Amino acid sequence: MNSSDYHAPTSLLDKVNSPSDLRKLELEQLPRLCEEIRHFLISNLSINPGHFASSMGAVDIIVALHYVFDTPSDRLVWDVGHQAYAHKILTGRRELFPKQRTLGGISGFPSPLESPYDTFIAGHAGNSISAALGMAVADMATPGREKRKTVAIVGDASISGGLAFEGLNNASNHPNNLLIILNDNDMSIDNNVGALHSYLSDLTTSAGYNRWRNRMAGYFRKKGFLTENRKRAIIRFSNSLKSLISKKQNIFEGLNIRYFGPFDGHDVIKIVKILRDIKEMEGPRLLHLCTVKGKGYQPAEESPTIWHAPGKFNPDTGERLYSGSDGKPPLWQEVFGETLVELAKTDDRVMGITAAMPTGTSMIQMLNEMPERTFDVGISEGHAVTFAGGLASAGKKPFVAIYSSFLQRAYDNIIHDVAIQGLPVTFCIDRAGLVGEDGVTHHGLFDMSYLRCIPGMIIAAPADEETLRNVMFSSLNVNAPLAIRYPRGRATKPDWKSPFAEIKIGKGKRVRTRDGAKIAILSLGPSLQEALTAASRLEEKDIRVDVFDMVWLKPLDEEILRFAAELYESIITIEDGAVVGGLGSAIDEWMSANDVKTRHISLGVSDKWIGHGSVEQLKSICRIDADAIMDCVIGLNAAKS
Amino acid sequence: MNSSDYHAPTSLLDKVNSPSDLRKLELEQLPRLCEEIRHFLISNLSINPGHFASSMGAVDIIVALHYVFDTPSDRLVWDVGHQAYAHKILTGRRELFPKQRTLGGISGFPSPLESPYDTFIAGHAGNSISAALGMAVADMATPGREKRKTVAIVGDASISGGLAFEGLNNASNHPNNLLIILNDNDMSIDNNVGALHSYLSDLTTSAGYNRWRNRMAGYFRKKGFLTENRKRAIIRFSNSLKSLISKKQNIFEGLNIRYFGPFDGHDVIKIVKILRDIKEMEGPRLLHLCTVKGKGYQPAEESPTIWHAPGKFNPDTGERLYSGSDGKPPLWQEVFGETLVELAKTDDRVMGITAAMPTGTSMIQMLNEMPERTFDVGISEGHAVTFAGGLASAGKKPFVAIYSSFLQRAYDNIIHDVAIQGLPVTFCIDRAGLVGEDGVTHHGLFDMSYLRCIPGMIIAAPADEETLRNVMFSSLNVNAPLAIRYPRGRATKPDWKSPFAEIKIGKGKRVRTRDGAKIAILSLGPSLQEALTAASRLEEKDIRVDVFDMVWLKPLDEEILRFAAELYESIITIEDGAVVGGLGSAIDEWMSANDVKTRHISLGVSDKWIGHGSVEQLKSICRIDADAIMDCVIGLNAAKS
Repeated sequence: MNSSDYHAPTSLLDKVNSPSDLRKLELEQLPRLCEEIRHFLISNLSINPGHFASSMGAVDIIVALHYVFDTPSDRLVWDVGHQAYAHKILTGRRELFPKQRTLGGISGFPSPLESPYDTFIAGHAGNSISAALGMAVADMATPGREKRKTVAIVGDASISGGLAFEGLNNASNHPNNLLIILNDNDMSIDNNVGALHSYLSDLTTSAGYNRWRNRMAGYFRKKGFLTENRKRAIIRFSNSLKSLISKKQNIFEGLNIRYFGPFDGHDVIKIVKILRDIKEMEGPRLLHLCTVKGKGYQPAEESPTIWHAPGKFNPDTGERLYSGSDGKPPLWQEVFGETLVELAKTDDRVMGITAAMPTGTSMIQMLNEMPERTFDVGISEGHAVTFAGGLASAGKKPFVAIYSSFLQRAYDNIIHDVAIQGLPVTFCIDRAGLVGEDGVTHHGLFDMSYLRCIPGMIIAAPADEETLRNVMFSSLNVNAPLAIRYPRGRATKPDWKSPFAEIKIGKGKRVRTRDGAKIAILSLGPSLQEALTAASRLEEKDIRVDVFDMVWLKPLDEEILRFAAELYESIITIEDGAVVGGLGSAIDEWMSANDVKTRHISLGVSDKWIGHGSVEQLKSICRIDADAIMDCVIGLNAAKS
Repeated sequence: MNSSDYHAPTSLLDKVNSPSDLRKLELEQLPRLCEEIRHFLISNLSINPGHFASSMGAVDIIVALHYVFDTPSDRLVWDVGHQAYAHKILTGRRELFPKQRTLGGISGFPSPLESPYDTFIAGHAGNSISAALGMAVADMATPGREKRKTVAIVGDASISGGLAFEGLNNASNHPNNLLIILNDNDMSIDNNVGALHSYLSDLTTSAGYNRWRNRMAGYFRKKGFLTENRKRAIIRFSNSLKSLISKKQNIFEGLNIRYFGPFDGHDVIKIVKILRDIKEMEGPRLLHLCTVKGKGYQPAEESPTIWHAPGKFNPDTGERLYSGSDGKPPLWQEVFGETLVELAKTDDRVMGITAAMPTGTSMIQMLNEMPERTFDVGISEGHAVTFAGGLASAGKKPFVAIYSSFLQRAYDNIIHDVAIQGLPVTFCIDRAGLVGEDGVTHHGLFDMSYLRCIPGMIIAAPADEETLRNVMFSSLNVNAPLAIRYPRGRATKPDWKSPFAEIKIGKGKRVRTRDGAKIAILSLGPSLQEALTAASRLEEKDIRVDVFDMVWLKPLDEEILRFAAELYESIITIEDGAVVGGLGSAIDEWMSANDVKTRHISLGVSDKWIGHGSVEQLKSICRIDADAIMDCVIGLNAAKS
């Protein structure tokens, strides 16, 4: 496709308002439909940013699946749903698509609340096989539903995670007709890593042999030689033979899952034919389809990592229209990434670990400069943390950078493989707090609650880049697990590269004091900016409040707490995280333990699921912005008078 | 070995006080040493109960490893350390062994705090490969330490978990000399499950071919034909050939890990020879050794599940000396197990899921009666929960029974694959609270904190078996995730099979009221017994307290809270879990949100790691027993007067 074609008409797509419309098309029309869907994606996503490259790559597979299977009765179960845009477009959400990922609009990921075609949530990688197996097994156990089909679609990066392996390992334990589609684009968000990845590449390079085998099978089938049993034996024999030739073994066959492939994942007509062939087979089976990330848009095919989520762009030129960062404060992740390299240069013990997110966490900087001390372990957060524990127990100082919501996958590893042993691993928790457009599956709201209960865990939430740098620096001399949480987006100062200074664990800061203030705001993390904004605006109304930056969630600065409890009539806490179990909760515990009766109001994300929208919109809705603080102060004043 | 031999002398073992003593023995003396270690284990464990069958099975491997490797400089990294008793005995802890698992004695699991030979903690399955990989990679990155060896020892059940797979998948990514010993006893604690298990069996049955291959290799080596490169090629070729013959593929080779085996894991002389052969090889490699659980003690060989942790026994007869349960209350797990079968019989939607613990959770009862609706997924807690989410989304009502500390491994699955979607999965959290002898890795202290912050999660902690039954029964009509936590050990009533009654979510009970009481005890879970005992004893001292059973951690019974806040001068909360983030914390949050100033004292497990001992001893140490409640009440009274 020439990129200037993106304005091309979508005459076929315009008629497809549901999968049943799609199924009325002739097989030969499908390539044209795929092309039109790609036009639609390019023209839409260039204006309304979203996940681009993986969505483009999955178009043909999605069209083929809805064409062959009787969705939504037959179920498609997505893995990391941001590849599934074409699925949304084909299932009645084409007109809603421009409002995707915005407040009140449709989600960027599959969501059962949104459509019966979205059978399961898919925000974190690797859950589709286990979830789909549950559905497939449930159907087999329900009279009258045995013929219902379930298809799990999984990427080559997802399938290397432990959860996907557990699903594969259990797939043949109970009767089911699960079909697994392996969408192999040879990529994670960044480059794919791990032995399974090189293994899949080897399978792919043996595709010539595979074509020969399929021609042979076709010939035998025509001649009527191929019974179901014989077919099975031939597949197994020929996969063994292939492994002998390629010097590699077929892992899926080893796990009792019948393997088909690899085939071209962009040849929609062929995919339809294969799906029809294997649709009615019994037992778990895996179809390996090779695709190209960004397929159909040359700039994205060439640089798929950049085009994972490119932001706005000019569809004609491929120029990405970011507003530029000149003069703006750095991204929090950049502060982390550059600081880590600085520390690693001065301290040999420093090691960097990321789980498939070198670009997303800015670990890429250390990966480029010191590849032998930087580890991208793939989508394996549990391994990342236990591996870090191993490094630490052998004298190293690992920095593990994982997004807050993804770190939930390593919870037991944090407890067992680091914290019980008191090992000096520094957890750099990116995307902590509300993340905006990615929505409910990606908000990092629980880390404070789930980490705070772990004995010996030290937890910081810096309010600015200088503090982030200094906490990282200071962690070098801390012989204990230490977590640092910081959000998505930009920090505060364009000129941020301050020299390192040791800072004290558990020591907060008095940031703003005014004579006669009766209310103290205790803030944690970048919410400090909201607190200071509120304080300034309140002063204009002649209401004085003092502001403290706690810096540390654990240990709490008890000196500040005692001071605040004595001096003020009321305390307001503000945090960008779940109010259940977070800073407010910690201070309530402290007040109770110390028999302190000062009025305390806790501002944080209340106990419900939060959807998507811009960070500012969501902060306003969750009442954790300057307005909320002002309202709270004014309310306290009114109650008093 | 004849079981009456257990009194036999341990003349060789008596001289081995460290691995360096062991390495002074002649190779031919090792079988005798192994026998003596088994005598020692039988005579000790018959009196001081512990993990028996797996420890007996691993003796020869352990002796061979310490004989060949230069421990503790070379590192052994255990997986589920309860197989490692012989390791403790050989590394200077023989005399401490009788006090194992008791208060102040050595731990039942490896513990780096205890010995330099214990390189990493090993309480939960599957972490050894990742941790050992961290150590091996750290050594390669440290000048002068490149020759240090690291060996991970993993069981066939552990290796089927996702974490172990993530470790295997990453093992070949960076230079390292990791050796993985697969101790394959064809067993989890219960029978092993999953495709990987049948795969390992198939490898084992092809051992004849393997013997032939090794004889050939030996011949070639003698003739000088075998260079390192040639050897590698031959292994790969012959594993491919084997996979062709056995119709199975070698998964480890697929993951770029050189595979050796299977060999007899009880032929200590042969194991030593093999280890010497492969010790200096470069790159990750796996040695597959087949063992028998309970090896050397016939009753245990015959019934390894019963003999996993048999309690006291008569070593001569093999009779297990349990004190009997006649007239005693049932185990909590038995109440769960029998109740689940009752519910499943009346409701077709009920499905049971366990992660390798059918006996430990009593899910075995449903597994025996309704195997088609009961799923043992192996050591795969994450998959267990996501699979349950899939079942629930297809209209089933899954009950997932997992120990509290193991459920930490499924945290993200609970959040994403169940809670965000509001799916009606019932989590039956066994071993919640202090578990006693298994110690720090097995206490279930965090579940209340890590579950309470999840929106929409309903959490109950029944105080008695009737309530457990009724919460399970009531959950059938709840269209939301619901967690029930209950402890290890016995419940309260010998006669417990009450008829089912619907109970209301979020509704607690006023259990004991006395005129003029100024203090209310709000209890959650079986701590109620401690509260009632304390209340009775206090009444003898003429101090009156009222007692409430909250039943639900979430939602809290606000009616009770309002009542208590108004009527009493002080509230004491008592819970068997971490005080950070648990019931006390929830009530502090409520008091703060409702501007309630009533004095509140929170009794729970304070913010530190708790070791091993009997449950009663630990409850006393943690101050969550009747004595602690009494002291608290008396202290409050004294402060008042």
